[in-house]
Amino acid sequence: MEIEDRDKIDILIKKLLTGDKLAAAKLISMIEDEPEKALKAMQIIYQYTGKAHIIGVTGAPGVGKSSLINYLIKKFRAENLSVGVIAVDATSPFTGGAVLGDRIRMQEHSTDPEVFIRSMGSRGHLGGLALSTQKSIRVLDAMGKDIILVESLGVGQVDIAISNVVDTVSLVLTPLMGDAIQTIKAGIMEIPDIYVINKSDLPGINIIENEIKSMLKLNTSEKDWEPPVVKTQSLTGEGFNTLSNKIKEHWKFLNKNNRLKSKRLKQAEIEVLETLSEQIKSKTWKEIKEIKDFKEIIKKVSERKIDPQQAVYILTKKINKKFSR
Amino acid sequence: MEIEDRDKIDILIKKLLTGDKLAAAKLISMIEDEPEKALKAMQIIYQYTGKAHIIGVTGAPGVGKSSLINYLIKKFRAENLSVGVIAVDATSPFTGGAVLGDRIRMQEHSTDPEVFIRSMGSRGHLGGLALSTQKSIRVLDAMGKDIILVESLGVGQVDIAISNVVDTVSLVLTPLMGDAIQTIKAGIMEIPDIYVINKSDLPGINIIENEIKSMLKLNTSEKDWEPPVVKTQSLTGEGFNTLSNKIKEHWKFLNKNNRLKSKRLKQAEIEVLETLSEQIKSKTWKEIKEIKDFKEIIKKVSERKIDPQQAVYILTKKINKKFSR
Repeated sequence: MEIEDRDKIDILIKKLLTGDKLAAAKLISMIEDEPEKALKAMQIIYQYTGKAHIIGVTGAPGVGKSSLINYLIKKFRAENLSVGVIAVDATSPFTGGAVLGDRIRMQEHSTDPEVFIRSMGSRGHLGGLALSTQKSIRVLDAMGKDIILVESLGVGQVDIAISNVVDTVSLVLTPLMGDAIQTIKAGIMEIPDIYVINKSDLPGINIIENEIKSMLKLNTSEKDWEPPVVKTQSLTGEGFNTLSNKIKEHWKFLNKNNRLKSKRLKQAEIEVLETLSEQIKSKTWKEIKEIKDFKEIIKKVSERKIDPQQAVYILTKKINKKFSR
Repeated sequence: MEIEDRDKIDILIKKLLTGDKLAAAKLISMIEDEPEKALKAMQIIYQYTGKAHIIGVTGAPGVGKSSLINYLIKKFRAENLSVGVIAVDATSPFTGGAVLGDRIRMQEHSTDPEVFIRSMGSRGHLGGLALSTQKSIRVLDAMGKDIILVESLGVGQVDIAISNVVDTVSLVLTPLMGDAIQTIKAGIMEIPDIYVINKSDLPGINIIENEIKSMLKLNTSEKDWEPPVVKTQSLTGEGFNTLSNKIKEHWKFLNKNNRLKSKRLKQAEIEVLETLSEQIKSKTWKEIKEIKDFKEIIKKVSERKIDPQQAVYILTKKINKKFSR
């Protein structure tokens, strides 16, 4: 890295640590546009992270995650807590897919120096999005935000990684969607810490509530936290008090008996193993593609002359020979 | 593997190749329950695959994928083509999340010896689901099915892998969901080969149609296949003729000028590289966890004493030393 770049990064980080919004924005842009350069910054920042309560707000498009986040911002600000928001859901008003009303509601926080909202653009590469989301959360953490809200779809490749960087997972549903429940039952979605049934004025509220509760009863895994089911209404604000209380309760729960510590130990382990795997993977792919008859072997697989397992066996032997390891 | 098991597998495969439904069902159960044992079977089967036209029917829960598949089965059967269905979507009637009407509609095919329907249970492990789906498709392919329909959600970790085993991707939307379009725009979903707007009697049909068309215009990547937009109505059967014609057109298109060949070459490459990566990953994870101070290093990361990158660097050096490669 050039000395000039390093100096620039040092200055940015110094500013970031004082809570400077522009520095945060610049660092996140660097994460998105110049990931190699951002790596050094992330290494320095890391020591200043780990303090914020990171809350995932997940759910399908249209369930009202953004209004909910807007309300939570207000709530936390009233308690003088600083708030950061990272929006990963491409259909979120935060990221651009908004109806006018949503945008206006959001504006009210933009002038508050203690609120920082940032949306993550997916630039075609999913794995990259998960990684840059995690890094951006760290920027807000180092910046000194007490609360970091992460808005995301909750299913899919992006979010599997996200669940590893969040302390409290809240899942937002509506009475009209039994689907999410099915998805949880099928094991595609992990069990959240808090269930939110938004738009609770819609018919079907009792059905979905009972479905969640009976599902929770089936969950026999030993857990000392029983996920609450909170009913909310974006229009009237009903239930939002309960919701923010439940979020705080979960934070207290995590901070008791070293639970947060062991959760973050687990998260660190996964992150280190995943990072290492990625490195080894890209190294191996490069090595393999350099093998002289790689294309020929693949062609044979494609023509059903050898099967994929056999090809893997042949290629592994070739790599081991070539690099004699 | 025990000789008895091998004999059993040989017999199953022999039966499978004659189109035996029970053998197919048993092999898929083996893939799900005894993946190690199924590996050998998959190696033998592989040479008999590659003939079927594999069609992905993707879309959010509730868009009507199952009725659509039911219709397509009828259509292909009328042309005397044999049909296999693999349902991965946990909310699908095929996999259990059905309303009564759907189930009844589905029954009509269950007695047809040329139709084989199988749903994949996700047993908590996502990557595993993608893998067993691919293998199950191969079972149906070796069985001699002309057409294999794969019903899935279209977003998420499962489906990224699925798109690598499908020849034709059709995306099912409804007028009420602009969301999917947003998802494609954000690059989270790949561009399908065929767009289906189901429930085309609902208001908003023109809006979504125009949105898709203007999005397609923006796609400047060189493609000689222009994805058609087909409007369908499950109740009246409207548009389903056009849909099956478009599917056949895409198959003809793929079979012209070696396109299918190069597509499957690419798929073979990805499969071999992914399989190899998985092997290396699990080997490395095992090696790393055996390193004496692994837990200590992770603890330091968790306590912010060292950062993840540093930990990766330290661990890589330790592995290289230990295994002197």
